[in-house]
Order: sequence, then C-alpha cells, then structure tokens
Amino acid sequence: MAEPFDAVEVIRTKRDGGELSDEQVDWVVDAYTRGAVAEEQMAALAMAILLRGMSRREVARWTGAMVSTGSRMDWSDVERPTTDKHSTGGVGDKITLPLAPTVAACGAAVPQLSGRGLGHTGGTLDKLESISGWRASLSSEEMLSQLQSVGAVVCAAGADLAPADRKLYALRDVTGTVEAVPLIASSIMSKKIAEGTGALVLDVKVGSGAFMKDVESARELARTMVDLGTDADVRTVALLTNMQTPLGLTAGNALEVRESVEVLAGGGPQDVVELTVALAREMLTAAGLDGGKDPADALGDGSAMDVWRAMIAAQGGDQDAPLPVAAEKHTVLAPADGVLTSLDAYGVGVAAWRLGAGRARKEDRVQAGAGVEMHAKPGALVRAGEPLLTLHTDQPDRFERALVALEGAYQIAPRGSRPDLLPLVIERVD
Amino acid sequence: MAEPFDAVEVIRTKRDGGELSDEQVDWVVDAYTRGAVAEEQMAALAMAILLRGMSRREVARWTGAMVSTGSRMDWSDVERPTTDKHSTGGVGDKITLPLAPTVAACGAAVPQLSGRGLGHTGGTLDKLESISGWRASLSSEEMLSQLQSVGAVVCAAGADLAPADRKLYALRDVTGTVEAVPLIASSIMSKKIAEGTGALVLDVKVGSGAFMKDVESARELARTMVDLGTDADVRTVALLTNMQTPLGLTAGNALEVRESVEVLAGGGPQDVVELTVALAREMLTAAGLDGGKDPADALGDGSAMDVWRAMIAAQGGDQDAPLPVAAEKHTVLAPADGVLTSLDAYGVGVAAWRLGAGRARKEDRVQAGAGVEMHAKPGALVRAGEPLLTLHTDQPDRFERALVALEGAYQIAPRGSRPDLLPLVIERVD
Repeated sequence: MAEPFDAVEVIRTKRDGGELSDEQVDWVVDAYTRGAVAEEQMAALAMAILLRGMSRREVARWTGAMVSTGSRMDWSDVERPTTDKHSTGGVGDKITLPLAPTVAACGAAVPQLSGRGLGHTGGTLDKLESISGWRASLSSEEMLSQLQSVGAVVCAAGADLAPADRKLYALRDVTGTVEAVPLIASSIMSKKIAEGTGALVLDVKVGSGAFMKDVESARELARTMVDLGTDADVRTVALLTNMQTPLGLTAGNALEVRESVEVLAGGGPQDVVELTVALAREMLTAAGLDGGKDPADALGDGSAMDVWRAMIAAQGGDQDAPLPVAAEKHTVLAPADGVLTSLDAYGVGVAAWRLGAGRARKEDRVQAGAGVEMHAKPGALVRAGEPLLTLHTDQPDRFERALVALEGAYQIAPRGSRPDLLPLVIERVD
Repeated sequence: MAEPFDAVEVIRTKRDGGELSDEQVDWVVDAYTRGAVAEEQMAALAMAILLRGMSRREVARWTGAMVSTGSRMDWSDVERPTTDKHSTGGVGDKITLPLAPTVAACGAAVPQLSGRGLGHTGGTLDKLESISGWRASLSSEEMLSQLQSVGAVVCAAGADLAPADRKLYALRDVTGTVEAVPLIASSIMSKKIAEGTGALVLDVKVGSGAFMKDVESARELARTMVDLGTDADVRTVALLTNMQTPLGLTAGNALEVRESVEVLAGGGPQDVVELTVALAREMLTAAGLDGGKDPADALGDGSAMDVWRAMIAAQGGDQDAPLPVAAEKHTVLAPADGVLTSLDAYGVGVAAWRLGAGRARKEDRVQAGAGVEMHAKPGALVRAGEPLLTLHTDQPDRFERALVALEGAYQIAPRGSRPDLLPLVIERVD
C-alpha cells in the first residue's frame, strides 16, 4: 500500500520551523512503529523537534498517536476513582512505595505501571524486586482483580502499552535526542494515558540528581505534561520538587524498601513522609476525594501498612523473608566538625549506581543490597571521624569508583552555617 | 577495540551549538564509514549540523576526514598542470562537454570524475553515454594514460573515492538533510580533493533550476567551497552563474551532446559558448596558464574539437554512429505574438526528467533521446502558432505530465517588453 505522506517532507516541515498537521503526526508515529519510517528518518525528525520545538496541538496529537499504537487500559469496572503519580526520576526516590498504599487506604484506587532504573536514578520495579518472590508482571485481569480487592497495584507495563514509545525511547537514547521536552512529555504521558488512570499527579524533580537541572526547564516540562493530561481528559497536576539532595537516608533497592516500610509504620525520614503526604493529598484531590481520610492519618494508624502488606502479598512477595543485605560495607567518615551544607544527589546517585544498585544497559542486572546509606542530611551537625555515609555492595572492587563519584559531593562548613536549600515542594502547576 | 569517543556526546556537542574538535570529526566520519556510528546517529548529527552550522575549521576537517576514508589520486606523472570544473547542477548544463576538450586544447590536463543525474538536473555521464560505445568506467591507469595522451578525461568516480560521502549522501537523501551547506560543500570538495586536481573552478548555479535559489545562499556555498579548496592546497575559484533559464537550447542527453558538438565546431548557442569560454579562462588561470592560447580560439580553430574526438575515441565512443533520437515528438506552440520574457529552468528540467531524460531513483535507466528542445530563449520575439518547444520521448504517455510541468513555465509579453534577466556570470568568488 502506498503511504499517504513522505517522511522527508515531514522532516523538512519541522526542520524549517513549521507545524506538522494532525494527519502528518498520526502517520509518522504509526509508520515509524510499523517500520515504514526508518530509524534514521525518525532520528532526524527527533533532532528537528528538539531544536525547533512543537506547539501544544502538535504534542497532544503526537501523544495521542503514540497511545493509539497500542491498547488503552480500562478501569471502569473498578468502583473507586483511579489516581496515579509519576515521578521524572531522582536519587532515593522511593515515594511510590509508601504512597500507593497510603492513597488506597484513603479510598482511591492506584493502577501504577512502573519502570526499571537506567543510569543514576533508581526504578520502582527494581526496588520492589528486592522483596523475595515479588512479581512485576501481571495480566490485565490480575491488575483489575488486585485493584478491586486491594486498591493498589504497582507492576510492569506490558508490551502493548504505547509500543511507539518503547521504540522511540531506545532511538532517542542513542541519538542525543532524549532531552527534547515535547518528546519527554509525550513519552511519559502516552504511557500514563494508556494506563487508563482518571487522575494523575506529576512529581517533576529539579536539581543535580534530576533530569531537569533548573526550575525553569522543569516548569516547562510540567506545564507541557499537565496540558497533555488535561487535553486527554486525565485530571492532571504537577509538583516541582527538590532533587538537589537525595530523598530520605537511602539510595539503593533493598535499602529503600526498608526505609519505605519505616514510613508506612509511622516513622522514617521527615522528607520522605512530607513528600508522600503532599503527593497523596494531590492524588486524592485530583480523584475528587478531598475531605475524606487524610494521608498523614493513614500512615499513623496502620491502615496504609495494611494495604502495603496486601499489595505485596497479592504479587507473591514474602514479607517474612529478610531483605537482601550487601556482602561488603565501606564507611565514609566526616572529615571535620561542622554543619553538613550539601549532599549532592547526582554524586550519591552515581555512587549507588556504581556500587551495583543501578544498570548502565537495559540488560544489566542490579544488586538488591547495593547502595548508599546516609547518616546525615544537609543542615545536620556532624563531628570529625563520625560516619557520614555507608557504601554497600557485593563486590568490593566497586568501592573505588563509587568513592570517586562522591568526591566533592558533600560539604561541611563551620558551626552556625546554614545550607542554602530549596523547599522540598518548590511549586505547583495545574 | 573500544572507540575513543561516544557518538551521543558528539551529537550533543553539535546539538547544543558547540564546535566539534578535530579528533571528534576524524572519529565520527571514520566510525560512520566503518559502521561503528549507526545510520540513525549520523542522521541526528546531520540534522544538528544543518540547524547549528559548522565553523570553517570544522568543515575543513570534516572534508579532510571524508577524503581520508578513501584514496587520493595522484597526477604528478602528468606533465601538464591539472585543472577541473565542478557545477552544482542545472538544466541544460552540458558545459563540461565542450569545456574539458577546450581547456586541454589550451595546454592544461583535465581529470574530471563526474556523476549521473538525479531529479530534474542532468548528469554528465548520462549525456556522454548516449554516444554509442562510450565507457564511463576507467581504471586509474587508463585515466593517467588518457590524461597524458589526450589531456582530458571525463569518467565515473571509483568506489574508493571518498566512500564516506557515498554513504552519507544516501543517508542525507532520505533524512531531509541534503540542504546543509557544510555537508553540501564537504561532499563536493571531498571528491574533488580526492580526485587530485591541482586547480578547480566551481560553477555555482543560482535560480529556479538550481539547488541554490538565491544569490546569497549560492554565495555562502561558494565561499565555503573556495575556503575548503584553498585549505586543501587546491587553487580554487567560484563563479555564481544564472540558472533561472536553461543553458542553451536543449535539455536531455543526446540532445545536449549534439549541441555541445555544435559549440566545439565553432557554432552553438551564445550562452553555452560564453560560459564555456568564461569557465575555461578561469581554469587556465587557476592552473597558472594564463597568457597562453585563448579558449575562444580553441573553439574557433578546431583544436578543441580534435581533443573532443580523441577523448571520446579513447573511451570507446563511436563517432560515426548516429546519436539516438526519441521515437515521439510533441510540439508546444507559442500562444500569442510578443516577447518571450521567461522560460523557467525548473519547469523545463522537470519536463525533461518526466519525458525520460532523468531518473527518480538511482537504479532507474534514462532515455538517451528524451528531453526538451527550445526554439526561443528569453528576449526573443515569438509569433502565435510558431513552435516554442519540442518535447522528445520514446513513450508518448509521458507527454501529459511533462506538459503539466511546463504550465506557467514561459511567459509572453507585448512587443517592446524586456525580460528581467540576471547576467550569465553573476559574481566571482575567490
């Protein structure tokens, strides 16, 4: 069958700063997924999109076209309103783990399709897989059943969820076109729209450990995604949140599960609790459930923990089995007395990655026990010779490169100094 | 062996407006030719180059790197100085045919590696192949021998001449990146530098029938190529010449050979003679041969024709065999009395192409006899009902689409009107 458009014409239109028509967008996304537009043609188009941008109409159409390459999930049989969260990725970002059960404990249903980590940011599935027996792959029927019985499910996206995105993401990764805001936004939102959630809260990370290094670019991405969600009838809001320093006191798979369970038990680091509650309130409001049970209460009264236990059990997780612990440890001591004024998220993220918590290529395996444990966060007083960080890995030859990543990643200033910190929640975009 | 650079880093550098280092350029061109940089990566880089540009240093290095992917020819055994011409392509541009023997008749040697036509512009090899028996493929030894005995050779480039360019050109063709000036300039100049000519005259066409539609962009391309030649120790000048209207009175392979022979016999259309002489003088000056025999004299005294005959015979051409004639003709009559004020090169070029003189894909065959014969050029008086154009093809079903291409391609104004014509030679760049 003859194609209705010519890929070179579509590329030239965007290259020369023009807008693609709805028909051109629909065709190029579909034809690329079918293989009728070649990888090199899409690479040239992606670079033109990165350098020329896209209008709101174009991004919305592109996102819809990506959704249409696969199936869209349907939760109309679930009685509760559905609501979900997506984070653009950070260091120590275990928030989904306490968040999903907390929101379910407050009356919503959370159908979260999640991913694995790549590079220095962790992946939710990698974290949950450190629980013995826990299964990331569920059928649609299993998801539906778990949403109805438990109220929360966190699992892997199937191959039929926006397959264009899978193909395009792999291409962008090798062609220097990952950073195009329209392509980032449509990649994230196509999956969330296909996932079928009724409401969505975006946690757009800002800072050294995040994809977006400054507030302005994070705001642009947030704005684009909120518009995309709204245009697709998903009630969407975004919070810009601080990723200058890691979240909580751990970065690593089993380490973060342990910390999440502490939060669900009513304890845990203050920043993790604060962000979990803030995101949970937004998710409930977006789902039309404000005025009901408050997320802080669900963490305090054990009801969030009950949902967590049910959610892990439903996916085969053995909660009696101890969490994996790395074979080797190395402690970094504070070099001086004073105030810890910075602890750089990127440095800690790369260290955890090099210790084995993350992967460099999709096919790599992660170490469940590897990662970085932090004994102080910015603002804390530290004493020379006391532990600042503990590095965990199964392979002691990894310590050296992890320590290189941590050089300059923390600073200690004289007593009385104050770290220059952004608030945890920087801005709300709706 | 590990690669010394990462393709994504190279792409990002150019994408973000930076300059590539010499080492990055050398590596990316070589690695692409070897297949270590993928087609989609080079496509993204080519788009970034198109939109971000390249410095003089970058283009020179890129061109040198392309030359280095193959061998560079060596004519140091030829006693005469070598000089060549390259045209960026136009309609009716048969100039190489009278030019090469004319310049050889004035004492220089012309080692021209030439190409085939693609799209609406013709190719020199296609034209010469309408001579029965004429052979485009020569070995280096045959070229050398012919340069020494005849003084001029026009033949096909071998596979070892800048192989990076062959691969990159095919990629640019399908990715909307043909129009990048640094890539056009380095493509042309890498082949001319590898060809080993000592001097080079560039005929940069401007106007509807040319790749460059306006003087400014033609000047930029000319400037870039002259710089590249100079940096590679090839004495290089460029003429910007008019391609608003076709050259001569024919566009088509055998039709143009016939016209070229008329020029070599001391006749032929005035514009073809004028441009042949202008380019020949530049080629001789660049070769250090000014003050010798004048090209106009070589056309008048039969010495250029003698070289032509020897050159065609040396490559197997049978000059006693009649040139092919198309099976069918269709005459377009002037619709009114008056002055022909325009005859659009693009329209005539597309008509000739559709009649069978050109090819849409590399693997297509051309018709030797097909093309357009013009009975008047802009400025001429015409009478209603007299022939304006004759269309030639072997397949009469091609007339209709050729006539569509000619709609609006000529204009007749009342007697006394004057066409608004650019001069034939618009500007000189050295």
